[in-house]
Amino acid sequence: MRIREYGISVGCMPAGPLNKISDVPGVTVGHSTVISGRHQTGVSVIMPCPDDPFTHKLTAASYVLNGYGKTAGLVQIDELGTLESPVVLTNTLNVGLMFDAAVGYILDRCAAQGVHPVSVNPLVCECNDSKLNLITERAVGPRNFLEAVADAKADFAEGAVGGGRGMSCHGLKGGIGSSSRRVGFDGREFTVGILVMTNHGKLSDLVINGDPIGKRIAAVQASETLPAAGGRASTGSAGAVCPSGNACSPAAEEPERGSCIVILATDLPLSERQLKRVLKRCPVGMARLGSFIGSGSGEVFVGFSTANRRDESDGRAVRTAEAFDDGHIDPVFRAAAEATEEAILNAMTAAEPVTGYTGLTRRSLAEYLGKV
Amino acid sequence: MRIREYGISVGCMPAGPLNKISDVPGVTVGHSTVISGRHQTGVSVIMPCPDDPFTHKLTAASYVLNGYGKTAGLVQIDELGTLESPVVLTNTLNVGLMFDAAVGYILDRCAAQGVHPVSVNPLVCECNDSKLNLITERAVGPRNFLEAVADAKADFAEGAVGGGRGMSCHGLKGGIGSSSRRVGFDGREFTVGILVMTNHGKLSDLVINGDPIGKRIAAVQASETLPAAGGRASTGSAGAVCPSGNACSPAAEEPERGSCIVILATDLPLSERQLKRVLKRCPVGMARLGSFIGSGSGEVFVGFSTANRRDESDGRAVRTAEAFDDGHIDPVFRAAAEATEEAILNAMTAAEPVTGYTGLTRRSLAEYLGKV
Amino acid sequence: MRIREYGISVGCMPAGPLNKISDVPGVTVGHSTVISGRHQTGVSVIMPCPDDPFTHKLTAASYVLNGYGKTAGLVQIDELGTLESPVVLTNTLNVGLMFDAAVGYILDRCAAQGVHPVSVNPLVCECNDSKLNLITERAVGPRNFLEAVADAKADFAEGAVGGGRGMSCHGLKGGIGSSSRRVGFDGREFTVGILVMTNHGKLSDLVINGDPIGKRIAAVQASETLPAAGGRASTGSAGAVCPSGNACSPAAEEPERGSCIVILATDLPLSERQLKRVLKRCPVGMARLGSFIGSGSGEVFVGFSTANRRDESDGRAVRTAEAFDDGHIDPVFRAAAEATEEAILNAMTAAEPVTGYTGLTRRSLAEYLGKV
Amino acid sequence: MRIREYGISVGCMPAGPLNKISDVPGVTVGHSTVISGRHQTGVSVIMPCPDDPFTHKLTAASYVLNGYGKTAGLVQIDELGTLESPVVLTNTLNVGLMFDAAVGYILDRCAAQGVHPVSVNPLVCECNDSKLNLITERAVGPRNFLEAVADAKADFAEGAVGGGRGMSCHGLKGGIGSSSRRVGFDGREFTVGILVMTNHGKLSDLVINGDPIGKRIAAVQASETLPAAGGRASTGSAGAVCPSGNACSPAAEEPERGSCIVILATDLPLSERQLKRVLKRCPVGMARLGSFIGSGSGEVFVGFSTANRRDESDGRAVRTAEAFDDGHIDPVFRAAAEATEEAILNAMTAAEPVTGYTGLTRRSLAEYLGKV
Repeated sequence: MRIREYGISVGCMPAGPLNKISDVPGVTVGHSTVISGRHQTGVSVIMPCPDDPFTHKLTAASYVLNGYGKTAGLVQIDELGTLESPVVLTNTLNVGLMFDAAVGYILDRCAAQGVHPVSVNPLVCECNDSKLNLITERAVGPRNFLEAVADAKADFAEGAVGGGRGMSCHGLKGGIGSSSRRVGFDGREFTVGILVMTNHGKLSDLVINGDPIGKRIAAVQASETLPAAGGRASTGSAGAVCPSGNACSPAAEEPERGSCIVILATDLPLSERQLKRVLKRCPVGMARLGSFIGSGSGEVFVGFSTANRRDESDGRAVRTAEAFDDGHIDPVFRAAAEATEEAILNAMTAAEPVTGYTGLTRRSLAEYLGKV
Repeated sequence: MRIREYGISVGCMPAGPLNKISDVPGVTVGHSTVISGRHQTGVSVIMPCPDDPFTHKLTAASYVLNGYGKTAGLVQIDELGTLESPVVLTNTLNVGLMFDAAVGYILDRCAAQGVHPVSVNPLVCECNDSKLNLITERAVGPRNFLEAVADAKADFAEGAVGGGRGMSCHGLKGGIGSSSRRVGFDGREFTVGILVMTNHGKLSDLVINGDPIGKRIAAVQASETLPAAGGRASTGSAGAVCPSGNACSPAAEEPERGSCIVILATDLPLSERQLKRVLKRCPVGMARLGSFIGSGSGEVFVGFSTANRRDESDGRAVRTAEAFDDGHIDPVFRAAAEATEEAILNAMTAAEPVTGYTGLTRRSLAEYLGKV
Repeated sequence: MRIREYGISVGCMPAGPLNKISDVPGVTVGHSTVISGRHQTGVSVIMPCPDDPFTHKLTAASYVLNGYGKTAGLVQIDELGTLESPVVLTNTLNVGLMFDAAVGYILDRCAAQGVHPVSVNPLVCECNDSKLNLITERAVGPRNFLEAVADAKADFAEGAVGGGRGMSCHGLKGGIGSSSRRVGFDGREFTVGILVMTNHGKLSDLVINGDPIGKRIAAVQASETLPAAGGRASTGSAGAVCPSGNACSPAAEEPERGSCIVILATDLPLSERQLKRVLKRCPVGMARLGSFIGSGSGEVFVGFSTANRRDESDGRAVRTAEAFDDGHIDPVFRAAAEATEEAILNAMTAAEPVTGYTGLTRRSLAEYLGKV
Repeated sequence: MRIREYGISVGCMPAGPLNKISDVPGVTVGHSTVISGRHQTGVSVIMPCPDDPFTHKLTAASYVLNGYGKTAGLVQIDELGTLESPVVLTNTLNVGLMFDAAVGYILDRCAAQGVHPVSVNPLVCECNDSKLNLITERAVGPRNFLEAVADAKADFAEGAVGGGRGMSCHGLKGGIGSSSRRVGFDGREFTVGILVMTNHGKLSDLVINGDPIGKRIAAVQASETLPAAGGRASTGSAGAVCPSGNACSPAAEEPERGSCIVILATDLPLSERQLKRVLKRCPVGMARLGSFIGSGSGEVFVGFSTANRRDESDGRAVRTAEAFDDGHIDPVFRAAAEATEEAILNAMTAAEPVTGYTGLTRRSLAEYLGKV
């Protein structure tokens, strides 16, 4: 179930046919999920194009709102403005192994084309799923990476899958979500697509389209005794419910772990500077859902355009490209904000409840929508 | 009238006694307002300390969310992490004259202490008030600067005063607003104070504590024929009201002019890196009120701490200072988000309606609160 | 006299016909110099194009190596990647008045075309000439700005003129200097041009093509009794001569005032990201001449391209532009390093000796070349 | 052999007793070198302190001059200003496996102290050694990481060892090098230490203390027929020798692969902002040796201070720390420039010639010093 199936829509702009990042032509997403007694984790890959991103690089940019994270690959993206690998999403401590798996994959794929690079820049983003997953064991291996690549398709799964398997969001189950918006310029149609891996926010802060539902869910959770697998009650962030008035004691709150990875794709011919500008509007969607962007973990935004692919094989120094005028960019900003907000909600409603290795259960927003 | 007098409070953290930036001990604010047939403009100054900021510099940082603006002084603040002048807020085209006025003021103030600097770095921030003010005439002169300094006090005016005189916010009257939050650590009390000069947002996007009041105000404005001074109707952004469903045409919208200056003060011993982290949470307050941070103008955030003042007169290279631990910073982040949101609302409710030189009137949010 | 007239050439790349920034077609430079008993200062302007930069903006970027400075205008250049005004070079405390003068000039120029902007972003760069100039009096007025604009031409003056009048470089006379390099791609010729305003470095650190001439000049100066205007001896940085061995006491050195403004122009179709990459190679030229980029003042680099001018008058969102491939950029990097190094030397050899209001004389490198 | 043993000294500041980064108390360095028919590579680790960097973090900062590289770990260092792991140096494609090895090591080390983190941020820097090493096989494994840690000592090896085994510098053999400088403030002695992994520069550009020795070495190499292991002649960059005059054709040059990793350690109580300022002066040392900072690979600088270690175990939010005044920082800048320059030369003279898997031999600068 996605958020629109609950009668809730975000913003006013039209979505694409799938309302997913894959509405951007050529973009696909795949998952490999690891579930065991000790592990609730996995890896997701965003394939930015049907052909090879290494030999035909894409324009790309990043924006780090909160760098408390371990994402690898941003240094080169920022310098050269290009993406040359799949985008990999996994748990924090698996970044190294997924970097290595992506290197192997890109080398093999290039070799199959007769190209033999000696330098590749994988992009590996992460959130910390240690509440549900025994993260120190780094359970996501190279086979999972290849499985996720093989799974890549336009109509991909959302929720507690792939890299999102063990994530929490606003005290409920987080995971992978997606959404898209369509924009028109000069008589042409373009798409802005978002994919998120959500692991941020406090329950009592959750607000949906102005409704402070998080406080009500927290109250329900506090009043229940929830027998969860393994016998431990899932309390979410119930203790942090903010009483009315000014009596709350924010200094005593446990820190928000604010990790959220947002990947933006578009077929608009945006430059790396413009992509960065657009990425800076994605946090608007997070803020509207109640996050104040806590200190605890990384808020990393990466965007790429499928326009103006860079084919260097002709050896020319100067080529012709399309350029977008900043004077028209506001609808793109709005699209990024709206699609991020809706993607987060899709991650939450699509996610099934998951009980982790300690017995802690993260319940789904879907259990509460329309009922509290 | 401030937003709390309408029964609306923002967030859960306690405010300081004045609920203004001047709750941070030593901080004062003054205004000089220019009103004439052609001009609705002015200058506001934030005096960061009762003594001299040049000879005893303050720790400071900036964050530029949208650099479509002309703020002067950030280059040195970013390099050295210090503020050495009053913070000046004025209209876009008056930045040069206010830079010059601030230089003169600082030189004179230093000379009175027997100090004769040959280099000073004024901080001059701006928004564009050209909808109401004949901005090209640069009506704010050096006398206005000195008048604002002389006016500085803890219980300062808000609304359509000083630099905020000609500003618009969400299609209504914007201006100067302020708010504060108190936080406690290690048994000590500290304050986070915010002052904003608001000139951003679209009317139909305005949301207050989840209530999409902007759409209702826009509908009222569209249904009225408002005889304004000069005979021209004030339509705000009524034409951009977003119809229900997905029929809106964002590509056809007129650009949001997203300018908002946010100044943060605190007596917490934050480093320049930490101040920048805190500043990055101020846009949360803007997003919650409905802004998507439009392209049209600058969103600039500057913060300073009154702790750890730098007295270089002893000639020592190494000194002792207080340092704050990032592990405790979440309440400060939340305070910045809440106080920014409330400060914007205070700017809007405190602002009287203003009719500009073209006859356009910006009406006050106060006219509509509780009535639409 | 320019450095090549002393038989000294820098690097191996060919220079343009004038060996000045104006070898980039359309770029011109003008000066207005203020000389009086108390003042040795002025203003220089770089006109980036023969037509109007506001209505047809240029791609631009900045790089701040040392932000201890007051340059105004970078915030918007960094955000939008465009230059829309002349580049103004003056003394530190005159930034405000030159900002205001540039605003007036641009407004007037636009009005003459029937365009009436309400927002303009002047770029005003500065170095501190207070050793020779009574800087606190801000002697450069709006008339000087217009005089500099009227003086703009391709074969402009170098040395102790315009904004460079009161500057010092490596303990000798600094000022305005320029140089250029030609590069070829795809059978086309392009130019990289540099203009510097030099006010950095210590005398004993000066090295020219590997020759530590600065130490010898310092020794000569130390052995002389130089009767300067006003009766005060010009000692340069003689006291800081570094003895052989490790006996020097760097902690006791007086701080280097490292200010240097470097403006780069090119007709290559570089993006703002690529311009920033190129700008980062300009400091190579400073380092080879012996600077270690002291803390004392700003090292600011601004670059613009005359290709891909932005004409927004057709209202289109997407246009065609030329794009340069980073894989070919190394010669451009080398050109920036070489031309910066030669431009600094040209500023020094072209500069006549100047005696300031305190009686201090900055002597010219030209007095010593080939003689010590 | 180190560069001073050839009678060549760099700059005027005194070095520490070892003239290595380990002159900063507590800093040690270890290597593990991989040599086989196909591999010339390895890993080096800088242990920033004798105790645990995770539980007692160090103040740290980075500066990316050229982000064409894959260094992992900078995002969090930039956000939090702390280093919590050893600094790992290896080849480009081994970053993933070394990230994973470092994670395992830190987890184990913490577990031995009864601390069980779920998030760690390894810092893994890299250069591309593919000219000599079959890099695609990622030959550096977790055992090598532990071997390097076990090897860590103050009087560590330089040259073609550890991560530097397969690196090239100015067309000759590159590798690991180190140097240090001593500075005094307020009657106390401090040390600035540098360790480099050098893989940058063109042979014909090499200049040592003003002597363009690179051109002479290139001429010698061009005149020789050098029978190297595997039968292939080592031509270095001989073809790129720049003829006198302006006849060279820079557009035809093969790209410089400019990779150089510079690690700076100090016991001065510098803040993360100040460390970044100091790091920005390290490239001065590279430029003086002739590099123009080519586009081809990453120029990454990381610095840390061993002062003000962060012990969070007392749970306090505010602590006392030492702070350094920027007004005294020039000698630290000079120290960084000098030590970087000398460290690069030490890497080159200490490196033995190495013949790679293709038969290409990189010869040592030591073969030519004093002989060409």
